[in-house]
Amino acid sequence: MSILRGDKRKNNDLRDVKLITGFTIHAEGSVLIEMGHTKVICTASVSESVPRFLKKTGKGWLTAEYSMLPRATEDRNRREASMGKLGGRTMEIQRLIGRSLRACLDMGKLGERSITIDCDVIQADGGTRTASITGGYVALAIAINKLVADGKLEESPLISNVAAISVGVVGGVPMLDLKYTEDASADVDMNVIMNSKMEFVEVQGTGEETTFTRKELNDLLDLAEKGIKELFEIQNEAIERA
Amino acid sequence: MSILRGDKRKNNDLRDVKLITGFTIHAEGSVLIEMGHTKVICTASVSESVPRFLKKTGKGWLTAEYSMLPRATEDRNRREASMGKLGGRTMEIQRLIGRSLRACLDMGKLGERSITIDCDVIQADGGTRTASITGGYVALAIAINKLVADGKLEESPLISNVAAISVGVVGGVPMLDLKYTEDASADVDMNVIMNSKMEFVEVQGTGEETTFTRKELNDLLDLAEKGIKELFEIQNEAIERA
Amino acid sequence: MSILRGDKRKNNDLRDVKLITGFTIHAEGSVLIEMGHTKVICTASVSESVPRFLKKTGKGWLTAEYSMLPRATEDRNRREASMGKLGGRTMEIQRLIGRSLRACLDMGKLGERSITIDCDVIQADGGTRTASITGGYVALAIAINKLVADGKLEESPLISNVAAISVGVVGGVPMLDLKYTEDASADVDMNVIMNSKMEFVEVQGTGEETTFTRKELNDLLDLAEKGIKELFEIQNEAIERA
Amino acid sequence: MSILRGDKRKNNDLRDVKLITGFTIHAEGSVLIEMGHTKVICTASVSESVPRFLKKTGKGWLTAEYSMLPRATEDRNRREASMGKLGGRTMEIQRLIGRSLRACLDMGKLGERSITIDCDVIQADGGTRTASITGGYVALAIAINKLVADGKLEESPLISNVAAISVGVVGGVPMLDLKYTEDASADVDMNVIMNSKMEFVEVQGTGEETTFTRKELNDLLDLAEKGIKELFEIQNEAIERA
Amino acid sequence: MSILRGDKRKNNDLRDVKLITGFTIHAEGSVLIEMGHTKVICTASVSESVPRFLKKTGKGWLTAEYSMLPRATEDRNRREASMGKLGGRTMEIQRLIGRSLRACLDMGKLGERSITIDCDVIQADGGTRTASITGGYVALAIAINKLVADGKLEESPLISNVAAISVGVVGGVPMLDLKYTEDASADVDMNVIMNSKMEFVEVQGTGEETTFTRKELNDLLDLAEKGIKELFEIQNEAIERA
Amino acid sequence: MSILRGDKRKNNDLRDVKLITGFTIHAEGSVLIEMGHTKVICTASVSESVPRFLKKTGKGWLTAEYSMLPRATEDRNRREASMGKLGGRTMEIQRLIGRSLRACLDMGKLGERSITIDCDVIQADGGTRTASITGGYVALAIAINKLVADGKLEESPLISNVAAISVGVVGGVPMLDLKYTEDASADVDMNVIMNSKMEFVEVQGTGEETTFTRKELNDLLDLAEKGIKELFEIQNEAIERA
Repeated sequence: MSILRGDKRKNNDLRDVKLITGFTIHAEGSVLIEMGHTKVICTASVSESVPRFLKKTGKGWLTAEYSMLPRATEDRNRREASMGKLGGRTMEIQRLIGRSLRACLDMGKLGERSITIDCDVIQADGGTRTASITGGYVALAIAINKLVADGKLEESPLISNVAAISVGVVGGVPMLDLKYTEDASADVDMNVIMNSKMEFVEVQGTGEETTFTRKELNDLLDLAEKGIKELFEIQNEAIERA
Repeated sequence: MSILRGDKRKNNDLRDVKLITGFTIHAEGSVLIEMGHTKVICTASVSESVPRFLKKTGKGWLTAEYSMLPRATEDRNRREASMGKLGGRTMEIQRLIGRSLRACLDMGKLGERSITIDCDVIQADGGTRTASITGGYVALAIAINKLVADGKLEESPLISNVAAISVGVVGGVPMLDLKYTEDASADVDMNVIMNSKMEFVEVQGTGEETTFTRKELNDLLDLAEKGIKELFEIQNEAIERA
Repeated sequence: MSILRGDKRKNNDLRDVKLITGFTIHAEGSVLIEMGHTKVICTASVSESVPRFLKKTGKGWLTAEYSMLPRATEDRNRREASMGKLGGRTMEIQRLIGRSLRACLDMGKLGERSITIDCDVIQADGGTRTASITGGYVALAIAINKLVADGKLEESPLISNVAAISVGVVGGVPMLDLKYTEDASADVDMNVIMNSKMEFVEVQGTGEETTFTRKELNDLLDLAEKGIKELFEIQNEAIERA
Repeated sequence: MSILRGDKRKNNDLRDVKLITGFTIHAEGSVLIEMGHTKVICTASVSESVPRFLKKTGKGWLTAEYSMLPRATEDRNRREASMGKLGGRTMEIQRLIGRSLRACLDMGKLGERSITIDCDVIQADGGTRTASITGGYVALAIAINKLVADGKLEESPLISNVAAISVGVVGGVPMLDLKYTEDASADVDMNVIMNSKMEFVEVQGTGEETTFTRKELNDLLDLAEKGIKELFEIQNEAIERA
Repeated sequence: MSILRGDKRKNNDLRDVKLITGFTIHAEGSVLIEMGHTKVICTASVSESVPRFLKKTGKGWLTAEYSMLPRATEDRNRREASMGKLGGRTMEIQRLIGRSLRACLDMGKLGERSITIDCDVIQADGGTRTASITGGYVALAIAINKLVADGKLEESPLISNVAAISVGVVGGVPMLDLKYTEDASADVDMNVIMNSKMEFVEVQGTGEETTFTRKELNDLLDLAEKGIKELFEIQNEAIERA
Repeated sequence: MSILRGDKRKNNDLRDVKLITGFTIHAEGSVLIEMGHTKVICTASVSESVPRFLKKTGKGWLTAEYSMLPRATEDRNRREASMGKLGGRTMEIQRLIGRSLRACLDMGKLGERSITIDCDVIQADGGTRTASITGGYVALAIAINKLVADGKLEESPLISNVAAISVGVVGGVPMLDLKYTEDASADVDMNVIMNSKMEFVEVQGTGEETTFTRKELNDLLDLAEKGIKELFEIQNEAIERA
């Protein structure tokens, strides 16, 4: 279980991960996350209002939006704004990012405030949705720390880190952090999102072309746990630096 | 682990399942699936053409669409046709149904043909997406059998049954086949889709309000396996009857 | 004028009419209407608010929505929700249903309340819009009776029954209650909506491929009156049973 | 039955009708129709192609589009182009105009050609849909005559004139050609479309606020016949002049 | 620099300009502007409310909308309402008309009132956007004068006339007021909008197929100044007459 | 005319300009342009097909698309993809970029090929449309050079550089290259696009709140010429480096 991949990684290696905080100047929290060639700008925007269903509950909210630049990919994709609607894949991804990051927030402590996490993929090489969650957490934490530092929050509503990684079975071998060519040839593709207690926030496994056994499921979850532990450290370093 | 639920079921009991085949007359395959109060009309429509990306490949395709009647639920929902677009939840569900049912078809054997599975929820009480998959498979199998009987297919392209069930942790107890009130108060909610080799086609587990441990994940998968085995028998009986 | 039709009916016979009340559990009023193979789920949903133009007038309102399941017909139709807009035919029909059913309500007695009638065709064989009106009235009456029984209304705002039927000239012969194959070959196609004083609520006659004389108009109206009288009896029976 | 109306008309009088042919220069047929203060620009545009369902059938087609300038009415209406969709009323009207004018064309003689009738209301005072049909026929006839004169058609495909008028019961009195204030207070409102054999192309009678008897229906049809006969003469004069 | 053009004009001649005020009856201000074959109905509609961003500022607002009848042009254009959205050209033009006419209004003196200028091209032969501005000003001035006459405004908020003209280099020669065939073959096309102090409100010059020198720019601005001076006189005459 | 601005620039100074070529890996041409805090990713994508109106003409085409990340600005803007349509400002800008860059291409030499220039603003501080044109030219030139190097084009279809800059009158003083705070308080705002023969491709001057004289127009054009000359050098250096 330690064969070498095209990019010299072992099957349980992450790609190089970089977190460039303060990548843009206007947002309360901003980071460029790079996982190999995958690059996503994540920003956290704070607004002092909440959706109608939360008015007068004392609770806050978080939503996420996800998009790709048209030429983030090998072939150019049409802009969703030109097509006049969001595609199903985009909706699915931004709902996933939103659910995952809500899991690390105590909405009562946040108070009647909304946070929007924008994840814009400027270059794609597999794993853009998991990179968006991992980077989105960093943007969120920076924005929250700023609210605390500015005295707008007495106490941080952050409960735990949240990070995500993709794992998959490629050519019969379970692998961590698939790049695009691996993902495209994977028999099983799974996205795992965890918090720092090493509990699951979300698990999504798909066999698309094939199916997978309980054994394979367990091997993949083991790999994901290893990768996510490493991501937590990289997140924490970046947040401290910011 | 065998406490009684509101409707007298044990934690590992399915609700009453009914499959009324031939529910409508026009579709090649048609079934009304009832799981307790949840009722979904599933039809399979066969078309002798394929999307452009499959032209001249000799391969077929399957897509699914999902909708709820506005008053399938306790409160009336606005029609997506009136709002002018599909919501994110609908897109997510119909993509899931499509992926799940494509896993049971040998597209080469199907030939250049498209099958559309329409799942229309006429009454909702939790588990509509899993009922759609379980019922959708039955509509699909009936349509496929008709193509074979009519001599349009020499050999059935069906590889295996596919069925789905929801499981969740409610009040700390893992439970099978959640009805709406259980689903709404669940800490963890998981949809499991399997084939008749008891392999996973898709696993989607969400903690939304909370998170879940590896142990809980395993308990839920055990429950799901039990329920899905029972669903395969009910599916096969209905298909034979049709 | 009493030749036999394909389905053994005489030219002035209705098809078999069934009204299955309480077809779904959530709506205040619910019925499945079957006219031969045409089957429509009609529900009445009550909301304790009114559109802006009626606020503080003490008056209520009623609107209707109409849709067909994609495979209600011989060939599958694309969903309007996927196309992102309602077609002209749908809009025309739901405006007709709404106008027709508003004619049987005293809006002052209803008070500041809105009723939505949803008509969802699950199987189509001609006459879906008239079946929607006839069934819609039953769902409405059940919902109104419930409001009275629950003490929310002192007095019923129902003024009169309303029912509808299609008539047409097929092969030179005026006929009542056209099924799809008759409708498709009709020279004249007329929809007649009446109240129980046998007055017209709406008359819509179309010659599309041809034209029609005053004599033909009168023959068709005679047939419609006969059919609608019968429908009133069937409606009243169903409402009492409910 | 000959009481005077606000504008000195008797109950069976048309308003002043003017048909200004050649109102715009680009269209194959063009007319401004004025019925009192109601003014509609009608143009007929000929295209040498047909919708897909008519390809290789040797038959032609006609469709109509209808619109109002935003300030054609007392209060300004929002443009449908800005709202991003056609309203139900617009769709209903343009489908009616299309059906009505198709009834006067022999599609086989027209050959594989499409005609679009555009009806743009520049000032509205009731009866805009019937004025559109009456004016639309004139634009159509001019365009057809041009095709014949240019040698593109050997024989005119026009079967008959088509004209339309509104009639209604106002304050208990049946009246011809309602202007806006009459229409707004009418108990019954009927649009009648006839051909020059004095047969009906379409009859649409609505009671909206109230209902109407067979006797009233007959009185209204008598009035409509009288008005439409007069319109045929005015149409023919204008077409000859053109 | 005084060669004759196809329509006998010299290079610095305007086409025949007509301003028919009171063209429609409902709008507060209404005019038909004709510049040669180009004909645009311009109306000004006054509303006693403002967009949210101006509430409680004491200031008013003006917006413009622009549209062409489908057969205003040589070939029929699809309606934007049918296509479900405004095209880029339409948006660009209506934003230009709005900006230009806002430049002649003192918004504080207008008070919390909105004016909508609707420009509907019924026949197009080049220069429709500049004709819309020139005619739009006249409709606006009539509406403003009416507000003053009705005592709703103490003082006119009009600061200055605004008029617009197109100029271009055709076959190497700078020309004033291009008609369609000239515009289509122009190397440079410029729209100039000025106020009555002969200052620029907006200058838009485009080389599309080619480019232009500073000298050409200056020649074109000279021509535009001459034309706009003449338009101011024609505007003032029409407004006095109204 | 050499007062200092907030950022120490003189009135005729450009901001710091950086062109980072090869910023993303997939596009044929890619550059990040920074003008002070304004940052735009420009990519050029080549496709071996043309829009229908150019098929079999031997000519190519270029279009541009423009977008801003939601948090490129001080306050977060809603995504146009979520709103379901492009705003008027976006359409206006992308049409301008397209026209400007088409002016530097010989479409016959390009052959039946399409180039799409995507301009995505990741951080905005005024002048995003002119930065998009200046950067878009660089992405285009790199992509063209690649087509030549790859032997797909015998000869470069590039005729000339194209660059753009904004100029404006702020506090009575003409200034070059406005940043956002300057732009927001400018009396006149002009965008100037030129080619390397120092001819105008497009000139757009707007007085919005006020108007401007011929003298001011000339001063602004002088400033623009100076800035654009400097941009041509910076462009050429970057293209050589690439």
